[in-house]
Amino acid sequence: MGCPGLQCPGLWKHPKDKSRNYNTIEYWTNLAKTLERGKFNALFIADVLGGYDVFNGPQNLTAAAKSGAQWPINEPSAVVSAMAAVTKNLSFAITFSTISEAPYHFARRLATLDHLTNGRVGWNVVSSYLDSAARNLLNNQPLPPHTERYERAQEYIEIIYDLFLSSWSDDAIKVDPKTGVFADAERIRQINYEGKHFNVPGPSITEPTPQRLPVILQAGTSKQGTEFAARNAEAVFVNDATPEGLGIKIKGFKDLIKQQGRSDKDVKFLQLITVVLGDTHEEAIEKLQEYKSYSDLDGAQALFGGWTGIDIGQYGWDQELKHVESNAVRGFVEKWTKVLPGESGDIKKTREFVANQISIGGFGSVFYGTPKEVADEIERWVDISDLDGFNITYTITPGAFEEVVDKLIPELRSRGLVWDDYPKDGITFREQIFGTEGEDPTYLRSTHPAYELRWKAGESKEELEERIQSIKQERFNIAI
Amino acid sequence: MGCPGLQCPGLWKHPKDKSRNYNTIEYWTNLAKTLERGKFNALFIADVLGGYDVFNGPQNLTAAAKSGAQWPINEPSAVVSAMAAVTKNLSFAITFSTISEAPYHFARRLATLDHLTNGRVGWNVVSSYLDSAARNLLNNQPLPPHTERYERAQEYIEIIYDLFLSSWSDDAIKVDPKTGVFADAERIRQINYEGKHFNVPGPSITEPTPQRLPVILQAGTSKQGTEFAARNAEAVFVNDATPEGLGIKIKGFKDLIKQQGRSDKDVKFLQLITVVLGDTHEEAIEKLQEYKSYSDLDGAQALFGGWTGIDIGQYGWDQELKHVESNAVRGFVEKWTKVLPGESGDIKKTREFVANQISIGGFGSVFYGTPKEVADEIERWVDISDLDGFNITYTITPGAFEEVVDKLIPELRSRGLVWDDYPKDGITFREQIFGTEGEDPTYLRSTHPAYELRWKAGESKEELEERIQSIKQERFNIAI
Repeated sequence: MGCPGLQCPGLWKHPKDKSRNYNTIEYWTNLAKTLERGKFNALFIADVLGGYDVFNGPQNLTAAAKSGAQWPINEPSAVVSAMAAVTKNLSFAITFSTISEAPYHFARRLATLDHLTNGRVGWNVVSSYLDSAARNLLNNQPLPPHTERYERAQEYIEIIYDLFLSSWSDDAIKVDPKTGVFADAERIRQINYEGKHFNVPGPSITEPTPQRLPVILQAGTSKQGTEFAARNAEAVFVNDATPEGLGIKIKGFKDLIKQQGRSDKDVKFLQLITVVLGDTHEEAIEKLQEYKSYSDLDGAQALFGGWTGIDIGQYGWDQELKHVESNAVRGFVEKWTKVLPGESGDIKKTREFVANQISIGGFGSVFYGTPKEVADEIERWVDISDLDGFNITYTITPGAFEEVVDKLIPELRSRGLVWDDYPKDGITFREQIFGTEGEDPTYLRSTHPAYELRWKAGESKEELEERIQSIKQERFNIAI
Repeated sequence: MGCPGLQCPGLWKHPKDKSRNYNTIEYWTNLAKTLERGKFNALFIADVLGGYDVFNGPQNLTAAAKSGAQWPINEPSAVVSAMAAVTKNLSFAITFSTISEAPYHFARRLATLDHLTNGRVGWNVVSSYLDSAARNLLNNQPLPPHTERYERAQEYIEIIYDLFLSSWSDDAIKVDPKTGVFADAERIRQINYEGKHFNVPGPSITEPTPQRLPVILQAGTSKQGTEFAARNAEAVFVNDATPEGLGIKIKGFKDLIKQQGRSDKDVKFLQLITVVLGDTHEEAIEKLQEYKSYSDLDGAQALFGGWTGIDIGQYGWDQELKHVESNAVRGFVEKWTKVLPGESGDIKKTREFVANQISIGGFGSVFYGTPKEVADEIERWVDISDLDGFNITYTITPGAFEEVVDKLIPELRSRGLVWDDYPKDGITFREQIFGTEGEDPTYLRSTHPAYELRWKAGESKEELEERIQSIKQERFNIAI
């Protein structure tokens, strides 16, 4: 994330942490080179476009600003071209929210990234959860209700599908000096998207991109978010405190995916973890304790407030947490106000959770120990939960990533759990996820609802239009 | 421009032209390195977010697509970080339109670029002229009327001023491990902008940037555009067919600037030219003819249609051009429908203009000859018109730029018309334009209307607010 404190607020104070350099190019190019050295699939840049101002609020940024908890924060995609220039194979997943900009504007930004990286880009689709973002983006209006946000998100992604896949045919670009034709206008069409929220005639202003459509990622945890992911995502960020709990989640997710008519092999699941490594078990524990000594509890409470909408600053030490009608991260809110209310000492438990979990690792679990112990834990989680991969965040940066690359990856490699090298140079993001085999490995799997929207070379406009009409009726009319 | 044909549609067919690579990183990094080798101030990336679909229209993209005339076109700012990584001193001016995205969203994108480049960024403010862009960005609505566009643009830029200058004090960032304070929330304030079109509470989500405010550029040619530039711009793109005409324009501009209470030394004027060089005069003429043989007349007519709103495809060879109520580039429309209608053979003249001027050089003049002859012409234009600099576009790329750097720059340098080298490494864009002397050369000149909006270190919030209240009443209430 383009900020000084992502999931470990306050660790910028650690003498070895370099997150203060988040606003320099070198910070990002060095990180990209380190991850490519470790043969990582991708670097993921999360994003929010507002401050965590719920704690001690409303609209109080004191704790977030002091602790640097996801504040300040730069625009995430601006660093991609510099990182792509110093790497060959690493991909880049970027969060873009469907409330932040017009879909046509975003479509061009996303297409440009897929061109410049030669197919190494993915879009993490979010519908936003911070009122602070909505106020500034939507003329001081609050965040639209959760259901409306996902309704808009579905329209938004359909417009992206149409612009990327159905607006230019695969053979629209000619670049033929003999005929003088750069692009054939007959092979470019309007999309004429007319929705409840958006009306976009098109055509796309960009030519077909290397992946035709960047990889679609999602992290929804609510009922609607999960359904959106089951319908649209190719990779999903999931999170649970135990591999058993995660396994149940993933199984439920796969059922949903199959209900959408998709193969459950066409969606990959990634768990957020923080890794702390030591040469001995004791050294890892000491290191974790040392990191914790730098964490900022106010910052952790600010993050909790932003994610749940619950301001724990308003509660005395022995009060009950009340059910909150919050517009924030729905899954988080549901979990927190369902599990805890009425339990004796729930505010204490919440505070303990914030202090022990969120202040060091944020949303995700912390795996600590020797490289062997952490590799064992990774293996255990994968075995129990059917997980596909991990989204590794940091305590201190780039130190935590350097340790993972230099100490953990060799251990995982010796067990055959990660690859020795990229299978080829210039691998696209989709090939990283689903492999380089098959007829067109850079393109969507065939059960994805947008698969058939692609205007193929040689296909007439009428053929395409007939096909996409029936596809849309079949696939997208599943009730949101 | 992130497209295959900028001001010379069709020249992508030339065997030496590489503009087809516009969607690769190397295209941009090579160009940036070439310009830095020539000690250029900046690389300017223009932009539109719609197609030139007026010619043979309405909504007909055939000519633009075929000729590659500003179609397709990538998002311009995505390439900046890659170019900044391979240069030290070259700056980057980018066109962003005030109809394309919410000002808060744009503010973060712009601030991120100023951070990543360490102060080497400028914003060319445009209010858009293509209906095709508006339709796709504004839910299939036409472009707002010209007056409303500039009213919105003025509000938009005021929000940018407030977010960049009055939201975070110069000393808001502490990054002090001892006190545990990353940023001091007491030194960050809401802007609470309430306009007719925009309502943005703030605060800015980004910390103060290296230039505090990127350089403001503008290219308006209408009455309102010129007034907007006189009020806000630090550099202005101007254009005229003769240095005498240009001199009159610049003098008028300077009067307007002084009426705004600004020093006319605080705004620089840049003329668009295309340069064609030969070792002999004859060779240059031959080269120009050879280039013309590749130009695409339909593409030139498409550009003319987009700029003026006039579809010359609708006219027979002996008809009179009619006055057009066009929402396009106002200055161009006014010029064309004022000068020509009623003159005998005006459609022929228009077609000649399109064929001889727009098809090779677009908006700007073509300077051709030996390096000495072109340097003479440059000197003549500067002497007569009081021009400050040139915006050099290309016939073929990067060839045209390599020739300018290798042949024209040495000639200009021998005459003392350009500098031998950058005065220092890591020079900001504003220092490129106004020099490295003075107390704070990276910041706005003192007569700029936003100058006093900066929240200084040590200054109380109340002092700032009192000051900006009076400033705003004084400066911004000049009728738009």
